[in-house]
Amino acid sequence: MLVDGVPYRTIWLADDNWTIEIIDQTKLPHEFKIVQLKTLQDTAIAIRDMWVRGAPLIGATAAYGAALAMREDPSDNNIDKMYDYLFATRPTAVNLQWALDEMKALLINTPMDQREIKAYERAAEICNEDVEICSNIGMYGARLIQDVYEDNKGSRVNILTHCNAGWLATVDWGTALAPIYKAHDAGIDVHVWVDETRPRNQGASLTAWELGQHGVSHTVIVDNAGGHLMQHGEVDMVITGTDRTTYTGDVCNKIGTYLKALAAKDNDIPFYVGLPSTTIDWTVNDGVKEIPIEQRDASEVTTMTGKNLSGNITEVLITPDSSDAANYAFDVTPNRLVTGLITERGVSDANSNSLKKLFPEKILPD
Amino acid sequence: MLVDGVPYRTIWLADDNWTIEIIDQTKLPHEFKIVQLKTLQDTAIAIRDMWVRGAPLIGATAAYGAALAMREDPSDNNIDKMYDYLFATRPTAVNLQWALDEMKALLINTPMDQREIKAYERAAEICNEDVEICSNIGMYGARLIQDVYEDNKGSRVNILTHCNAGWLATVDWGTALAPIYKAHDAGIDVHVWVDETRPRNQGASLTAWELGQHGVSHTVIVDNAGGHLMQHGEVDMVITGTDRTTYTGDVCNKIGTYLKALAAKDNDIPFYVGLPSTTIDWTVNDGVKEIPIEQRDASEVTTMTGKNLSGNITEVLITPDSSDAANYAFDVTPNRLVTGLITERGVSDANSNSLKKLFPEKILPD
Repeated sequence: MLVDGVPYRTIWLADDNWTIEIIDQTKLPHEFKIVQLKTLQDTAIAIRDMWVRGAPLIGATAAYGAALAMREDPSDNNIDKMYDYLFATRPTAVNLQWALDEMKALLINTPMDQREIKAYERAAEICNEDVEICSNIGMYGARLIQDVYEDNKGSRVNILTHCNAGWLATVDWGTALAPIYKAHDAGIDVHVWVDETRPRNQGASLTAWELGQHGVSHTVIVDNAGGHLMQHGEVDMVITGTDRTTYTGDVCNKIGTYLKALAAKDNDIPFYVGLPSTTIDWTVNDGVKEIPIEQRDASEVTTMTGKNLSGNITEVLITPDSSDAANYAFDVTPNRLVTGLITERGVSDANSNSLKKLFPEKILPD
Repeated sequence: MLVDGVPYRTIWLADDNWTIEIIDQTKLPHEFKIVQLKTLQDTAIAIRDMWVRGAPLIGATAAYGAALAMREDPSDNNIDKMYDYLFATRPTAVNLQWALDEMKALLINTPMDQREIKAYERAAEICNEDVEICSNIGMYGARLIQDVYEDNKGSRVNILTHCNAGWLATVDWGTALAPIYKAHDAGIDVHVWVDETRPRNQGASLTAWELGQHGVSHTVIVDNAGGHLMQHGEVDMVITGTDRTTYTGDVCNKIGTYLKALAAKDNDIPFYVGLPSTTIDWTVNDGVKEIPIEQRDASEVTTMTGKNLSGNITEVLITPDSSDAANYAFDVTPNRLVTGLITERGVSDANSNSLKKLFPEKILPD
């Protein structure tokens, strides 16, 4: 996607063909800072300190971390060291483990003198595969937007999104935002209502920034405002991402998604979820009952970070010193509220029969 | 209610028996600052700059502003001047106009040499009437909490509230929070989930502060979290305030209230609204269609104010410089989502028949 008119991915090889370059996303939206990763340790810091975030991008970064490790020392011993070192950066990230397993299995079966080159090749493939998956999600989702556009007789399509499931969370295109970029690029007049997404504000900071850079019309709103907009006909459809979706179609996503799905249902507005099929959990039947919800540090609720009048990034306390806060990171939207799941193979209803038709190779529990 | 163990109202006479004292609520929760109002102009600034807020407290402050004006100059001319001057501070506040009409009608019919004393008397009455109304809302609402407490077999009652409809918005007790204070004071184990209530954060700043000062157990959450808590049995009831409720029971309140009401309905959790009957609009039939919703300045969405590490109150920008924001102040919760309206005369169903039984003197439209 475009930044200041120039096409970027979120991770790429520098001109020297071995240094890795990423965007330090913790500086967004106030500064667009490109960082070079030259060692395994650099990569670990980038993942741990969330310069990169989003499951696909974490996986891609880890893959390149393995390549940098092999450049330093292609021994068996260093493969194990690289695995443990990177895995410890964000141990609950499923995609991180997947990428590390992938790289380790490849490297251990590769002669030592070819490990560096093979690792770079596989990391590039992982990136390209992710771009293709997201591009396909975008293609199928854009058709849904096109349909609304035609129903609207060519008037602007208003889409509400929550959190950031954009190109910044993937290698390119994004998941929830891929359909929006594809529709925009195809000349459809789209406008995005961007939920700020407290407590970490990924909507107000990341989604607003990337839509703005690519030239997509958008308006930031507080998380409280979506229901009101839906009551008054200002939202044509909702598209969010997901961290984990059950094979029955229950959608675990950033806290607050469930409230928007309820409002969409109450106002007969379609609620879609964009997802790579890797985030479908083929073992969980009841998302609300079975998916454990991470509780994060209360300081994310009690404080807010932004740019002060002097242009410096500053953290401010917004609650009384003595008040406790709770910080649930995700919620689960039951499948009855989900209109469709936009995957890289097409749009599925939010139930096991429909998902199984798209992914017949998957084995469902008895 | 208590502040640091000492009982306070939000407005009172100083020891000299004529100076007015208030709390500068813009400094909360980081500083408890009492301000003296000695002139009509002081009062106007206090209302205009929102040192005092909440309909009942604005009315009470304006009434005392009239008393200070009569102390300065009890002429007919000054009655008119006082009216216009105070009315201009927040022209859309219904209670402000009501209090000014009340004071003007009284003063114009009072001999000039008694105007000061009569104005002070009436202002004190207006305050006491508000305290009695809120106390009665508290009494009726506390019975509902008592019922839940008994159903819970004496386990803690978890109540979710949105925005600030506490004693800080009234002269004492509050509306939504009055039942909670009465229940707490009666020894019922209550715990309050406090929605932070973006964009102005009245929950995180004012509600959390006043509950904490009075010793009521509470936890601040982001506005996104309530639905998840309800899905998991962590909320026994919701109580909010209202800015305006139709005679049919549609509730206009701070933006985001509708989303919580939807989640309460989806999880079979009772959703109550505490209100003085003065906020019932006996002319509006359909709240969603007929109540105009104020749009406030976008800067409330794009910035956040809090205490920085040096202890100074600081404003920070949280969105990209180039992103627009929209700021709808209220939304309307349809009566089908409202379990009951807790008024000073008792609890009403959210419909015109039930409200008319409690307020038979009111005339409904044909």
